[in-house]
Amino acid sequence: MDFAFDAATGELHARLSAFMDEYVYPAEPVLAAELADPARDPWATPAIVRELQQRARERDLWNLFHRLPNLGYAPLAELTGRSIQLAPAATNCAAPDTGNMELLEQFGDEEQRKQWLEPLLAGEIRSAFAMTEPEVASSDASNIETRIERVGEEYLVNGRKWYITGAMNPACAVFIVMGKTDPDGDPRRQQSMILVPRDTPGVTVRRGMTVFGYDDRDHGGHAEVLFEDVRVPAGNLIGEPGSGFAIAQARLGPGRIHHCMRAIGMAERALELMCRRAGERVAFGRPLAAQGVVQDWIAESRVRIEQARLLVLKTAWLMDTVGNKGAHTEIQAIKIVVPQTVEWILDKAVQAHGAAGVSQDTPLAQLWAGNRTLRLADGPDEVHRRSLARRELRKYQG
Amino acid sequence: MDFAFDAATGELHARLSAFMDEYVYPAEPVLAAELADPARDPWATPAIVRELQQRARERDLWNLFHRLPNLGYAPLAELTGRSIQLAPAATNCAAPDTGNMELLEQFGDEEQRKQWLEPLLAGEIRSAFAMTEPEVASSDASNIETRIERVGEEYLVNGRKWYITGAMNPACAVFIVMGKTDPDGDPRRQQSMILVPRDTPGVTVRRGMTVFGYDDRDHGGHAEVLFEDVRVPAGNLIGEPGSGFAIAQARLGPGRIHHCMRAIGMAERALELMCRRAGERVAFGRPLAAQGVVQDWIAESRVRIEQARLLVLKTAWLMDTVGNKGAHTEIQAIKIVVPQTVEWILDKAVQAHGAAGVSQDTPLAQLWAGNRTLRLADGPDEVHRRSLARRELRKYQG
Amino acid sequence: MDFAFDAATGELHARLSAFMDEYVYPAEPVLAAELADPARDPWATPAIVRELQQRARERDLWNLFHRLPNLGYAPLAELTGRSIQLAPAATNCAAPDTGNMELLEQFGDEEQRKQWLEPLLAGEIRSAFAMTEPEVASSDASNIETRIERVGEEYLVNGRKWYITGAMNPACAVFIVMGKTDPDGDPRRQQSMILVPRDTPGVTVRRGMTVFGYDDRDHGGHAEVLFEDVRVPAGNLIGEPGSGFAIAQARLGPGRIHHCMRAIGMAERALELMCRRAGERVAFGRPLAAQGVVQDWIAESRVRIEQARLLVLKTAWLMDTVGNKGAHTEIQAIKIVVPQTVEWILDKAVQAHGAAGVSQDTPLAQLWAGNRTLRLADGPDEVHRRSLARRELRKYQG
Amino acid sequence: MDFAFDAATGELHARLSAFMDEYVYPAEPVLAAELADPARDPWATPAIVRELQQRARERDLWNLFHRLPNLGYAPLAELTGRSIQLAPAATNCAAPDTGNMELLEQFGDEEQRKQWLEPLLAGEIRSAFAMTEPEVASSDASNIETRIERVGEEYLVNGRKWYITGAMNPACAVFIVMGKTDPDGDPRRQQSMILVPRDTPGVTVRRGMTVFGYDDRDHGGHAEVLFEDVRVPAGNLIGEPGSGFAIAQARLGPGRIHHCMRAIGMAERALELMCRRAGERVAFGRPLAAQGVVQDWIAESRVRIEQARLLVLKTAWLMDTVGNKGAHTEIQAIKIVVPQTVEWILDKAVQAHGAAGVSQDTPLAQLWAGNRTLRLADGPDEVHRRSLARRELRKYQG
Repeated sequence: MDFAFDAATGELHARLSAFMDEYVYPAEPVLAAELADPARDPWATPAIVRELQQRARERDLWNLFHRLPNLGYAPLAELTGRSIQLAPAATNCAAPDTGNMELLEQFGDEEQRKQWLEPLLAGEIRSAFAMTEPEVASSDASNIETRIERVGEEYLVNGRKWYITGAMNPACAVFIVMGKTDPDGDPRRQQSMILVPRDTPGVTVRRGMTVFGYDDRDHGGHAEVLFEDVRVPAGNLIGEPGSGFAIAQARLGPGRIHHCMRAIGMAERALELMCRRAGERVAFGRPLAAQGVVQDWIAESRVRIEQARLLVLKTAWLMDTVGNKGAHTEIQAIKIVVPQTVEWILDKAVQAHGAAGVSQDTPLAQLWAGNRTLRLADGPDEVHRRSLARRELRKYQG
Repeated sequence: MDFAFDAATGELHARLSAFMDEYVYPAEPVLAAELADPARDPWATPAIVRELQQRARERDLWNLFHRLPNLGYAPLAELTGRSIQLAPAATNCAAPDTGNMELLEQFGDEEQRKQWLEPLLAGEIRSAFAMTEPEVASSDASNIETRIERVGEEYLVNGRKWYITGAMNPACAVFIVMGKTDPDGDPRRQQSMILVPRDTPGVTVRRGMTVFGYDDRDHGGHAEVLFEDVRVPAGNLIGEPGSGFAIAQARLGPGRIHHCMRAIGMAERALELMCRRAGERVAFGRPLAAQGVVQDWIAESRVRIEQARLLVLKTAWLMDTVGNKGAHTEIQAIKIVVPQTVEWILDKAVQAHGAAGVSQDTPLAQLWAGNRTLRLADGPDEVHRRSLARRELRKYQG
Repeated sequence: MDFAFDAATGELHARLSAFMDEYVYPAEPVLAAELADPARDPWATPAIVRELQQRARERDLWNLFHRLPNLGYAPLAELTGRSIQLAPAATNCAAPDTGNMELLEQFGDEEQRKQWLEPLLAGEIRSAFAMTEPEVASSDASNIETRIERVGEEYLVNGRKWYITGAMNPACAVFIVMGKTDPDGDPRRQQSMILVPRDTPGVTVRRGMTVFGYDDRDHGGHAEVLFEDVRVPAGNLIGEPGSGFAIAQARLGPGRIHHCMRAIGMAERALELMCRRAGERVAFGRPLAAQGVVQDWIAESRVRIEQARLLVLKTAWLMDTVGNKGAHTEIQAIKIVVPQTVEWILDKAVQAHGAAGVSQDTPLAQLWAGNRTLRLADGPDEVHRRSLARRELRKYQG
Repeated sequence: MDFAFDAATGELHARLSAFMDEYVYPAEPVLAAELADPARDPWATPAIVRELQQRARERDLWNLFHRLPNLGYAPLAELTGRSIQLAPAATNCAAPDTGNMELLEQFGDEEQRKQWLEPLLAGEIRSAFAMTEPEVASSDASNIETRIERVGEEYLVNGRKWYITGAMNPACAVFIVMGKTDPDGDPRRQQSMILVPRDTPGVTVRRGMTVFGYDDRDHGGHAEVLFEDVRVPAGNLIGEPGSGFAIAQARLGPGRIHHCMRAIGMAERALELMCRRAGERVAFGRPLAAQGVVQDWIAESRVRIEQARLLVLKTAWLMDTVGNKGAHTEIQAIKIVVPQTVEWILDKAVQAHGAAGVSQDTPLAQLWAGNRTLRLADGPDEVHRRSLARRELRKYQG
């Protein structure tokens, strides 16, 4: 057992950290100004992101998720989480593109990889993953109502999806849509995934859904999308018909750990902001930093972050050594614990900032909202807790 | 001791309840559509509110806060909290106008009452209360930096305020501004309050502050306001110079209990939505309502609401019988406990709704954000907890 | 609605309070010394209790639970909870005798009342209530395994019970035993209750069960009791055969509220001890009372107690005005919330006392253990939460 | 970074695990019977412990703490925590002897090591560490009131200590006493430590202190000890006069991590018991294992244990690689988080067991009490939280 980074990870970490200091943090106010500009397309990729992407390529900080094992990527993803609106996009490591790229690499055929994976890896287009539906509890995939029907040499797609992250961005060129090709089959073989180009007739990006008041325009929002008699070539199906559930499982594991890695970085940023604020703000004759309750928040935050990070790292190590399936319990564990940990810390950081904490003048409220959705996205906590408990219980069954 | 409503309260409660059913709840989607209309002034009082106000006047449900003792008003205010964007405004019982009207009634002179109180009671204008400042912990009034200087027959006001609720609404005709007239005096006699008409030169309503992404345009937003060499007649000062701290104390007690009453109603609404959703939504073969964890949330919500409401009612009774000062501990207690109780319930209601819970398609996320600010507004929880504890400790000191 | 005590309650409260100050609190060290005496029967009623009982009779503070409506009794029971080892017994208001006396009054026949109720009301004997069984989840009465079989003019009782409070005391003259007379009948008509004198052949009081290391010898401990072919006259059956479930329901409601009333008093005592300790103890140059975290505990304790007490009082009022059945939800609510509230406060009081808090030198650890069992006794929290939630959910069902 | 055990640790872990299965778990009821025997000295080392010690020596599982680095010892200590009354003593790895042995090894002179360390390593005697005092907050060493005065060739010791673990055991041959040799010196140079043989005149082992009703007789209880004009040779002083504070710091770090390692094992045992119980117990027609709330407890327990264990392991690794001082933050972090984590799990395990959970028939209640004291022992949580927060805050100070 050894808790030290290897040399290569240490070097990359130092390089990315310097990049953050030199380019990313200073770009935060630039982004805010750009997003507030009423003259621009509110959903388009911000110019400052394009600029940072150029810098990241120059510094060989591009596609980090794609080049490294999970354990090597984890500390880097955490760093990017410290500036969540900029750093993941700048390094082409932003969700949902990362998951989509991995999916295409693993399950796409040569044609699909050429058409979609290459421009994604190059950062030329963006993509979306269309699974969640408004009418059903999508955490139970057997509920999914979208239909993908084979009609001759095409598939016909019909359904309604929402919270399709990134889809408001006009650069989002393709949707990976989950639906049922065989609604009467075995519950885990009913679903398939299919590539639907954005400009296909019958695709309507209807509106941006909000998250506690935020439209998240910086990363393409969260769209409600209608698929009405959408026709795509049969070759757009990913893998075999009926493989959608298995592909989703394969995609979601790494997706979850990436979210958790970045969320740790968000918590570190929040703790830093809380400490700085506590040092500066005076109430009733003493800085907040000298007040016992605030100290308590800070200590608890530090203790919780340390624990959560270690579990994320161990999960990454397990994924690398025994595979995603062998790390199933740990992936669920971090999916459960990281968002609630980060939420607690963000809440305290908000409180320490007073009105500024809920405002647009600090990143805290928006971080809070983004992190809050992680308790729901890719299955609500309760589903994962139930599943994890049942595996634990089975250990002791006759 | 008796826990039953008296007949008059029962009758008003039934009348208001019928009004909610007949007019208010059906108006909620109307309001949403109106607020989404890009053609209208985003900050103006919505037409549907004006319409409901007319209905409320006809049904003698106008200015309820002004006609009733606290204990009689409490169950009515709770009802209005169930439709927080519409019902308080419809009955002319919305913050901050209620507190401002009480302030003018109690401390304003005849001229001030005539000029500002009468149109407020008639619902012709709206008003704002400008206390919080961005640069200091305003919960400690000795920090306030805004200056109100006597210059001949006028006062000169200079300062920066933010989170001035309602001030973005063009109908908001007047600000009650807290500042220091005597910055070197006794810490509790340094402050004064002064009436500043919105159109006075030097007043700049600079921007709307957001609350977790919401601009709260339905009730006039939360403005940052600059006062730069603003001159108003000396007669605009409320009460004596140096009485600002005492007036603030007098104003904030009732303001706090009103917030708490309405928040109980928000919690009831959330619990109802959670129960309805749990009955409808099916996951893994069973409705949420049959799942133990969801049942646990519902039971805990009911138990917490019952307790919090009783403490609010007892506080109202104390205010009516022994005065606001005699109810000081209880006012602090509800200020502490109600927002955290309601936040917990809203969080669970959001979770039970999945993605819809964080979206614009249910009221839950916006209710959550609004309630979250109550842990900060009028002094953060921590200030009230410290103060309450010190009073408790004094009971046992030699 | 009115939150003031009526005059009669106020007078009794003052009288009981004076009795506590004059006799009960000073008797606490006397009791400790007596219980530590190796020469005495460890389970017998302590002499100091007998002495206080005489004083209480003289002052007309005897059988308070029996003379007063629930709302009048509540504040008095709370007071006795402040010295839980002495005051309830001193006033003949201790569990399980109170519940047993009410049961006999309501369901016993003349003969049963004469034989057992009269000496109980006179404090001459004590009694036990034998429901809980070690082998089954007794919160679900359909699980009960004890058999009560009619054989000619007698009933034959066979079963094993445990945590039979008071039964180790040799003065405990009678057990009210719950068992099945009709194990194949309707689930709610299978059970009956029967009076079993302690000295009946076949009754074995096997051992004292402990509660976190305490044997609770001061109030007769918690016995494991075997009933092996125990024969009692048929007239010992209480009410009709098959009425055991209904009698249990009738008994448990008031029993639960009595526990809750006293637990509020325990919490007040703990808060007082915490405040006194905080005023006296110095660490790192300041008294604990000046430290923010300790202040936070004190404020939270006060806020929680106020809420819980009001819900207990409202429940008492409901029981008096609409009956135990009409107060079912509220009885469950206090059963859920009071023990967890009091546990939280006791935990903080222990923490503020350091090692003394877990020791025999303060009452806190023993109070904690006693209160902890309330989360299990008469049905664990989880059963009550589930039941309360299902009633809440039914409000919104088609 | 690597999360796998090395081969040597794996082998020892398997060997100890087999020893637990073969000898230790089966000895638990033997110990209970022995402790309940009224004929034996209640405080003496139980015969079954002596027997297990012989087995452990044979299997080369003796003095594990002494032979291994912290990271190698951690998983073994965790295993012993699964049977906390037997396994640490069986392997001569029980507190406070382990800490005392390390102290003597590091700071004792040759004579002291020969006289006390050798028989301790051989398991022939036991020892106690006398720091805590009843009258002061001992977490702040400057409060300590015990005096150690040089008088000619002797030291004169006067003071009162309590919660001196192990001291009731007649085999406890020596006390390491902390007191002030220079009460007016620099606050961190006032204290010294001195060896006081149990049979020295003036030493009175006055009584056993209890922990939530438990006297902990299995491991020598927790004594109140008086030192009245106790004279020991000057050579009994450990290290230099004035080095007591530094020695205490050096001793407490490893002591804390040992407690935390074992506490993780306690939590694993509790989780196992909870799962087994949940599988067996039926209420309302379904096993507890199928009920959502119980599943939630189990999932949460697993998630918390995994996190806490990793932080303990990382702390051990830090102590081995950068020393106790470099691991200061992490030692505090585990001291804060492990006991609260384990307490939560034990509480749920108790609840799942119903009355059995609080009784002497499962180990849960006693484990709870023992673990609860860890939130107080070696400094209450609040002291460590404050200290950790201040270090965190210093990172961001100009």
